[in-house]
Amino acid sequence: MTELKTVELKAPYLIFLGDETVPAYAKTGAGIAHWRPELCMGQISLAGGTVDLGLEKLSLQQASEKGAKTLIIGTSVVGGGIPDSWIELLSQALEQGMDIAAGVHTKLNDIEKLKVVSEKTGQRLIDVRTPPMNLPVGTGKKRSGKRLLTVGTDCALGKKYTALAIDQGLRARGIDSTFRATGQTGILISGSGMPIDAVVADFVSGAAEVLSPENDDNHWDVIEGQGSLHHPGFAAVSTGLLMGSQPDAFVVCTELGRETIKGWPDFKLPSIQAVIDRTVDIGKSVNTDIHCVGISVNSSSLEELEAQEQMQKLEKQYGLVVIDPIRFGAERLIEKLVAN
Amino acid sequence: MTELKTVELKAPYLIFLGDETVPAYAKTGAGIAHWRPELCMGQISLAGGTVDLGLEKLSLQQASEKGAKTLIIGTSVVGGGIPDSWIELLSQALEQGMDIAAGVHTKLNDIEKLKVVSEKTGQRLIDVRTPPMNLPVGTGKKRSGKRLLTVGTDCALGKKYTALAIDQGLRARGIDSTFRATGQTGILISGSGMPIDAVVADFVSGAAEVLSPENDDNHWDVIEGQGSLHHPGFAAVSTGLLMGSQPDAFVVCTELGRETIKGWPDFKLPSIQAVIDRTVDIGKSVNTDIHCVGISVNSSSLEELEAQEQMQKLEKQYGLVVIDPIRFGAERLIEKLVAN
Repeated sequence: MTELKTVELKAPYLIFLGDETVPAYAKTGAGIAHWRPELCMGQISLAGGTVDLGLEKLSLQQASEKGAKTLIIGTSVVGGGIPDSWIELLSQALEQGMDIAAGVHTKLNDIEKLKVVSEKTGQRLIDVRTPPMNLPVGTGKKRSGKRLLTVGTDCALGKKYTALAIDQGLRARGIDSTFRATGQTGILISGSGMPIDAVVADFVSGAAEVLSPENDDNHWDVIEGQGSLHHPGFAAVSTGLLMGSQPDAFVVCTELGRETIKGWPDFKLPSIQAVIDRTVDIGKSVNTDIHCVGISVNSSSLEELEAQEQMQKLEKQYGLVVIDPIRFGAERLIEKLVAN
Repeated sequence: MTELKTVELKAPYLIFLGDETVPAYAKTGAGIAHWRPELCMGQISLAGGTVDLGLEKLSLQQASEKGAKTLIIGTSVVGGGIPDSWIELLSQALEQGMDIAAGVHTKLNDIEKLKVVSEKTGQRLIDVRTPPMNLPVGTGKKRSGKRLLTVGTDCALGKKYTALAIDQGLRARGIDSTFRATGQTGILISGSGMPIDAVVADFVSGAAEVLSPENDDNHWDVIEGQGSLHHPGFAAVSTGLLMGSQPDAFVVCTELGRETIKGWPDFKLPSIQAVIDRTVDIGKSVNTDIHCVGISVNSSSLEELEAQEQMQKLEKQYGLVVIDPIRFGAERLIEKLVAN
């Protein structure tokens, strides 16, 4: 069995936000700040950056003096690069005694200047998006244990948050459950996982099988979904993850009010029904029990009352429980899951 | 625009077949022998190997004396490794003055012993399955020019052959056409292409876009399909390739008599209709004109008369032209394509 990639980060963290102005592109930083607040000392941006995680704003000097151990890159640009404009600050962070951790596609270890400073200072460059070696091809063989996968109408609308909330809720009820991270933020939060979108295409479903191995019959793996089966850029990732995860249950995640695919404005957001249909169509070849257990919405663009109205409308339309785990919690969905 | 990976091989070739006994796993060697017979000097196997491409059987010594310039690895094992039992013969080939070219997942350049001998002898180790650097994320934006993609019910049943035959037939009629290779054999045959299953999952549809760039309105790109949308191991590859290829037309390739997925005996082969439905379902989001233009079968397991009967039955059932390009040619399908 291929060993899972495990990350070990030294706390406390300083979260780096670049010059980002769009909160959705800072979901890595926001996720760590939300699920591991006790480990986050502060945040730092470049000129022009307006994203605010609500952490203390610190200079490198201040963070260093207060004992920050790791600078985590908390924002990502489309394509996953590390802009040249970041290098100077990152080098200084190493000089100030911090490790740097990142989950973007470009490897910190491939940037010559950072490598030189890392070797000089002894501080580490930690790339959490490097998959393990020698991943197998997916077998499609049914594994013991129960699995839930969060799927979506798009990227960046709550698949990770929903999975973390369900895992937390299951464990609070004394039910065996493991959150299975598939993206950089999830891996940075949970300390292990599979960077599924960095895996070579032939091995994506095999990687998903490794991420979620055989388990006790009553144990839940709650697997963080990626992308969308309908996404013009990322459908391959979502398809392989679905095939390899063999979910018994899935939750469709969407954002109320989002009409087009984020960053692909010519593409209409697929309907929830289209996502359910394609997920069942593909997933049933590896698990005939697959079913949609509920819908998880991000309703942050709406007033609370309007959000509740729209969620009730969706409940009626789909005959499924609809939650907004950030605003109203995930309890109703967990009850449904446990009752089945 | 990312430049296409181009391979330059020195002829004549010696095709290496390992100890393979199953012809389907020697499709790389068979493809080169079929489409580039003038470049193939002979074949060589290890003890136990029974696959025969119909080329002259030569020892390394004989091939070297006759002037062989490149040994091409013409067979592949599931997962794409290079068994230890091959290394001795490959080292000797380098010593005898041949380059080695391979398209399996394991890189020749990662095998220490071969690297040492390569450096000593000056002969090259050519890995055609190494994708270009800095591939973009798929945009989904519609490109000019016409595209045909061969899709399949499974791996290894004629997607490459069908694409090569259609491309050849179009050009024979004076119609602008380019064969776009996506696998090792196709790349070795055509001298360029995109090793799509070796691309990191996030960039598969982007790589397919790079492979088949904007072109004249009447130009056909005939794109070699990979895997199957229903495949438990390789669906991610097929999905990304479909999204990025934006085909106007597709051909479903299957093998008459094959009942389960090759190497995955617990999985029933999907029906042709299921493949058509899922291909249209996914493909229409990037090209609303997508349609199935015909069915290409590999009927080699049947007597000629029975093959013709079954093909006629399929024509009636699906209302589509059905060809076996190896046995009966691709002309009827090309006529259909050109008439549209």
